[in-house]
Amino acid sequence: MEEDEARRRFEGARVGHLATVTSQGHPHLVPVTFAVSGNTVWTAVDAKPKRSTRLQRLANLRGEPRVGLLVDHYEDDWEQLWWVRSDGTAVVHESSSAGLAALRAKYVQYDAQPPPGPFIEISLTGWRWWSAS
Amino acid sequence: MEEDEARRRFEGARVGHLATVTSQGHPHLVPVTFAVSGNTVWTAVDAKPKRSTRLQRLANLRGEPRVGLLVDHYEDDWEQLWWVRSDGTAVVHESSSAGLAALRAKYVQYDAQPPPGPFIEISLTGWRWWSAS
Repeated sequence: MEEDEARRRFEGARVGHLATVTSQGHPHLVPVTFAVSGNTVWTAVDAKPKRSTRLQRLANLRGEPRVGLLVDHYEDDWEQLWWVRSDGTAVVHESSSAGLAALRAKYVQYDAQPPPGPFIEISLTGWRWWSAS
Repeated sequence: MEEDEARRRFEGARVGHLATVTSQGHPHLVPVTFAVSGNTVWTAVDAKPKRSTRLQRLANLRGEPRVGLLVDHYEDDWEQLWWVRSDGTAVVHESSSAGLAALRAKYVQYDAQPPPGPFIEISLTGWRWWSAS
Protein backbone atom coordinates (compact mmCIF):
# COMPACT_ATOMS: atom_id res chain seq x y z
CA MET A 1 0.00 0.00 0.00
CA GLU A 2 1.35 3.41 -1.00
CA GLU A 3 0.99 6.54 1.12
CA ASP A 4 -1.71 8.02 -1.15
CA GLU A 5 -3.84 4.91 -0.71
CA ALA A 6 -3.19 4.80 3.04
CA ARG A 7 -4.36 8.41 3.38
CA ARG A 8 -7.40 7.74 1.21
CA ARG A 9 -8.48 4.82 3.38
CA PHE A 10 -7.83 6.79 6.56
CA GLU A 11 -9.88 9.77 5.39
CA GLY A 12 -12.75 7.58 4.28
CA ALA A 13 -13.07 5.61 7.50
CA ARG A 14 -16.25 6.32 9.48
CA VAL A 15 -14.68 5.67 12.87
CA GLY A 16 -11.20 6.05 14.32
CA HIS A 17 -9.59 5.05 17.60
CA LEU A 18 -8.06 7.93 19.52
CA ALA A 19 -5.24 7.22 21.96
CA THR A 20 -4.07 9.73 24.54
CA VAL A 21 -1.98 9.49 27.70
CA THR A 22 -3.27 10.20 31.20
CA SER A 23 -1.52 12.39 33.77
CA GLN A 24 -0.29 9.14 35.35
CA GLY A 25 1.33 8.13 32.06
CA HIS A 26 -1.19 5.41 31.25
CA PRO A 27 -2.74 4.91 27.83
CA HIS A 28 -6.36 5.86 27.21
CA LEU A 29 -8.43 5.23 24.11
CA VAL A 30 -11.89 5.86 22.75
CA PRO A 31 -13.56 5.48 19.37
CA VAL A 32 -14.27 8.81 17.64
CA THR A 33 -15.87 10.21 14.57
CA PHE A 34 -13.39 12.44 12.76
CA ALA A 35 -12.77 14.37 9.57
CA VAL A 36 -9.53 15.09 7.75
CA SER A 37 -8.83 18.48 6.20
CA GLY A 38 -5.41 18.66 4.62
CA ASN A 39 -2.91 17.80 7.34
CA THR A 40 -5.43 18.37 10.13
CA VAL A 41 -7.82 15.94 11.79
CA TRP A 42 -10.92 17.27 13.51
CA THR A 43 -12.94 15.47 16.12
CA ALA A 44 -15.45 16.93 18.55
CA VAL A 45 -17.37 16.26 21.67
CA ASP A 46 -20.81 15.69 20.24
CA ALA A 47 -24.30 15.09 21.50
CA LYS A 48 -23.99 11.33 21.67
CA PRO A 49 -24.64 10.42 25.32
CA LYS A 50 -21.51 10.39 27.44
CA ARG A 51 -20.67 8.95 30.81
CA SER A 52 -19.63 12.42 31.90
CA THR A 53 -19.20 15.91 30.45
CA ARG A 54 -15.72 16.08 32.01
CA LEU A 55 -14.19 13.84 29.41
CA GLN A 56 -10.95 12.01 30.15
CA ARG A 57 -9.64 12.63 26.64
CA LEU A 58 -9.77 16.41 27.19
CA ALA A 59 -8.12 16.18 30.60
CA ASN A 60 -5.36 14.05 29.08
CA LEU A 61 -4.67 16.52 26.28
CA ARG A 62 -4.07 19.31 28.76
CA GLY A 63 -1.06 17.39 30.06
CA GLU A 64 0.18 15.61 26.92
CA PRO A 65 -1.00 16.88 23.53
CA ARG A 66 0.43 13.94 21.59
CA VAL A 67 -2.21 11.60 20.19
CA GLY A 68 -2.48 8.59 17.94
CA LEU A 69 -5.47 7.94 15.68
CA LEU A 70 -5.92 4.46 14.25
CA VAL A 71 -8.18 3.26 11.47
CA ASP A 72 -8.31 -0.42 10.62
CA HIS A 73 -10.17 -3.03 8.67
CA TYR A 74 -10.86 -6.50 10.02
CA GLU A 75 -12.29 -9.57 8.42
CA ASP A 76 -11.72 -13.26 9.06
CA ASP A 77 -9.87 -13.55 5.77
CA TRP A 78 -6.62 -12.20 7.14
CA GLU A 79 -5.33 -11.49 3.65
CA GLN A 80 -7.71 -8.51 3.70
CA LEU A 81 -6.44 -6.88 6.89
CA TRP A 82 -5.05 -3.37 6.88
CA TRP A 83 -4.57 -0.44 9.20
CA VAL A 84 -3.46 3.18 8.99
CA ARG A 85 -2.33 5.26 11.94
CA SER A 86 -1.62 8.96 12.12
CA ASP A 87 0.24 10.52 15.00
CA GLY A 88 -0.14 14.16 15.83
CA THR A 89 -0.40 16.98 18.32
CA ALA A 90 -3.77 18.16 19.55
CA VAL A 91 -5.17 21.55 20.49
CA VAL A 92 -8.58 21.86 22.15
CA HIS A 93 -10.94 24.67 21.06
CA GLU A 94 -14.21 25.50 22.79
CA SER A 95 -15.71 26.05 19.34
CA SER A 96 -14.49 25.94 15.76
CA SER A 97 -16.28 26.82 12.56
CA ALA A 98 -13.60 25.02 10.54
CA GLY A 99 -13.96 21.89 12.65
CA LEU A 100 -17.72 22.01 12.48
CA ALA A 101 -17.66 22.41 8.71
CA ALA A 102 -15.25 19.50 8.24
CA LEU A 103 -17.30 17.18 10.46
CA ARG A 104 -20.64 18.15 8.90
CA ALA A 105 -19.24 17.58 5.41
CA LYS A 106 -18.45 13.98 6.35
CA TYR A 107 -21.30 13.01 8.69
CA VAL A 108 -24.87 13.80 7.69
CA GLN A 109 -25.78 12.86 11.27
CA TYR A 110 -24.36 16.19 12.40
CA ASP A 111 -26.89 18.11 10.30
CA ALA A 112 -29.66 17.25 12.73
CA GLN A 113 -27.55 17.79 15.82
CA PRO A 114 -24.27 19.65 15.33
CA PRO A 115 -21.55 18.83 17.87
CA PRO A 116 -21.50 21.48 20.59
CA GLY A 117 -17.78 20.92 21.20
CA PRO A 118 -15.14 21.29 22.45
CA PHE A 119 -13.35 20.59 19.16
CA ILE A 120 -10.02 18.77 19.01
CA GLU A 121 -7.69 19.89 16.23
CA ILE A 122 -4.91 17.40 15.52
CA SER A 123 -1.92 18.52 13.48
CA LEU A 124 -0.58 15.38 11.87
CA THR A 125 3.12 14.69 12.29
CA GLY A 126 3.47 11.17 11.00
CA TRP A 127 1.85 8.25 9.24
CA ARG A 128 2.22 4.50 9.59
CA TRP A 129 0.30 1.90 7.67
CA TRP A 130 0.25 -1.81 7.04
CA SER A 131 -1.58 -4.12 4.70
CA ALA A 132 -1.54 -7.91 4.68
CA SER A 133 -1.61 -8.19 0.92
CA MET B 1 -25.60 -2.07 29.08
CA GLU B 2 -24.74 -4.14 32.15
CA GLU B 3 -21.24 -5.41 32.91
CA ASP B 4 -22.06 -8.99 31.92
CA GLU B 5 -23.19 -7.83 28.49
CA ALA B 6 -20.17 -5.54 28.12
CA ARG B 7 -17.82 -8.42 28.88
CA ARG B 8 -19.69 -10.73 26.52
CA ARG B 9 -19.36 -8.25 23.64
CA PHE B 10 -15.70 -7.64 24.45
CA GLU B 11 -14.86 -11.34 24.50
CA GLY B 12 -16.72 -11.97 21.25
CA ALA B 13 -15.05 -9.21 19.27
CA ARG B 14 -12.70 -10.42 16.52
CA VAL B 15 -10.39 -7.43 16.73
CA GLY B 16 -9.30 -5.07 19.47
CA HIS B 17 -7.25 -1.89 19.57
CA LEU B 18 -4.24 -2.03 21.86
CA ALA B 19 -2.85 1.20 23.31
CA THR B 20 0.54 1.44 24.95
CA VAL B 21 2.85 4.32 25.85
CA THR B 22 6.28 4.90 24.32
CA SER B 23 9.43 5.66 26.29
CA GLN B 24 8.87 9.30 25.32
CA GLY B 25 5.43 9.21 26.94
CA HIS B 26 3.54 9.27 23.65
CA PRO B 27 0.55 7.06 22.88
CA HIS B 28 0.91 4.14 20.49
CA LEU B 29 -1.83 1.90 19.14
CA VAL B 30 -2.29 -1.10 16.88
CA PRO B 31 -5.16 -3.45 16.07
CA VAL B 32 -4.72 -6.93 17.54
CA THR B 33 -6.39 -10.29 17.61
CA PHE B 34 -6.91 -11.34 21.21
CA ALA B 35 -8.60 -13.91 23.43
CA VAL B 36 -10.05 -13.55 26.92
CA SER B 37 -9.56 -16.24 29.54
CA GLY B 38 -11.12 -15.29 32.86
CA ASN B 39 -9.54 -12.00 33.88
CA THR B 40 -6.67 -12.35 31.43
CA VAL B 41 -6.37 -11.17 27.84
CA TRP B 42 -3.91 -12.90 25.52
CA THR B 43 -2.51 -11.46 22.34
CA ALA B 44 0.55 -12.59 20.43
CA VAL B 45 2.98 -11.61 17.76
CA ASP B 46 1.81 -13.80 14.94
CA ALA B 47 2.87 -14.67 11.45
CA LYS B 48 0.95 -11.87 9.78
CA PRO B 49 3.55 -9.80 7.93
CA LYS B 50 5.01 -7.00 10.04
CA ARG B 51 6.94 -3.87 9.23
CA SER B 52 9.64 -5.10 11.61
CA THR B 53 10.27 -7.95 14.04
CA ARG B 54 11.34 -5.41 16.67
CA LEU B 55 7.81 -4.37 17.44
CA GLN B 56 7.12 -1.02 19.05
CA ARG B 57 4.41 -2.50 21.26
CA LEU B 58 6.92 -4.83 22.92
CA ALA B 59 9.49 -2.07 23.42
CA ASN B 60 6.79 0.09 24.99
CA LEU B 61 5.74 -2.61 27.45
CA ARG B 62 9.26 -2.91 28.78
CA GLY B 63 9.00 0.68 30.04
CA GLU B 64 5.31 0.97 30.89
CA PRO B 65 3.28 -2.23 31.31
CA ARG B 66 -0.08 -0.44 31.48
CA VAL B 67 -2.25 -0.99 28.42
CA GLY B 68 -5.74 -0.25 27.20
CA LEU B 69 -7.68 -2.56 24.90
CA LEU B 70 -10.73 -1.17 23.11
CA VAL B 71 -13.48 -2.98 21.26
CA ASP B 72 -16.16 -0.99 19.50
CA HIS B 73 -19.03 -1.22 17.09
CA TYR B 74 -19.72 1.43 14.47
CA GLU B 75 -22.58 1.91 12.10
CA ASP B 76 -24.09 5.02 10.59
CA ASP B 77 -27.18 4.59 12.74
CA TRP B 78 -25.61 6.13 15.82
CA GLU B 79 -28.26 4.58 18.05
CA GLN B 80 -26.38 1.31 17.52
CA LEU B 81 -22.95 2.52 18.67
CA TRP B 82 -21.20 0.89 21.60
CA TRP B 83 -17.73 0.33 22.94
CA VAL B 84 -16.03 -1.61 25.73
CA ARG B 85 -12.55 -0.93 27.04
CA SER B 86 -10.47 -2.94 29.44
CA ASP B 87 -7.41 -1.54 31.13
CA GLY B 88 -4.71 -3.78 32.45
CA THR B 89 -1.08 -4.57 33.06
CA ALA B 90 0.93 -6.59 30.56
CA VAL B 91 3.68 -9.16 30.88
CA VAL B 92 5.55 -10.39 27.80
CA HIS B 93 6.40 -14.11 27.49
CA GLU B 94 8.61 -15.58 24.77
CA SER B 95 6.17 -18.49 24.60
CA SER B 96 2.99 -19.55 26.39
CA SER B 97 0.98 -22.73 26.05
CA ALA B 98 -1.95 -21.07 27.85
CA GLY B 99 -1.84 -18.08 25.50
CA LEU B 100 -1.55 -20.29 22.45
CA ALA B 101 -4.50 -22.42 23.58
CA ALA B 102 -6.69 -19.38 24.23
CA LEU B 103 -5.91 -17.83 20.85
CA ARG B 104 -6.36 -21.07 18.90
CA ALA B 105 -9.71 -21.67 20.60
CA LYS B 106 -10.95 -18.34 19.23
CA TYR B 107 -9.25 -18.07 15.82
CA VAL B 108 -9.31 -21.04 13.48
CA GLN B 109 -6.75 -19.10 11.44
CA TYR B 110 -4.13 -20.00 14.03
CA ASP B 111 -4.59 -23.73 13.37
CA ALA B 112 -2.77 -23.44 10.06
CA GLN B 113 -0.10 -21.10 11.38
CA PRO B 114 0.19 -20.83 15.17
CA PRO B 115 1.59 -17.53 16.44
CA PRO B 116 5.31 -17.92 17.20
CA GLY B 117 5.14 -15.21 19.87
CA PRO B 118 6.14 -13.42 21.97
CA PHE B 119 2.83 -13.61 23.87
CA ILE B 120 1.40 -10.66 25.77
CA GLU B 121 -0.55 -11.55 28.91
CA ILE B 122 -2.74 -8.71 30.14
CA SER B 123 -4.14 -8.86 33.67
CA LEU B 124 -7.32 -6.83 33.58
CA THR B 125 -7.67 -4.15 36.22
CA GLY B 126 -10.72 -2.24 35.07
CA TRP B 127 -13.61 -2.02 32.65
CA ARG B 128 -15.38 0.88 31.00
CA TRP B 129 -18.21 0.63 28.52
CA TRP B 130 -20.73 2.80 26.76
CA SER B 131 -23.77 2.20 24.61
CA ALA B 132 -25.85 4.77 22.76
CA SER B 133 -29.13 3.02 23.43
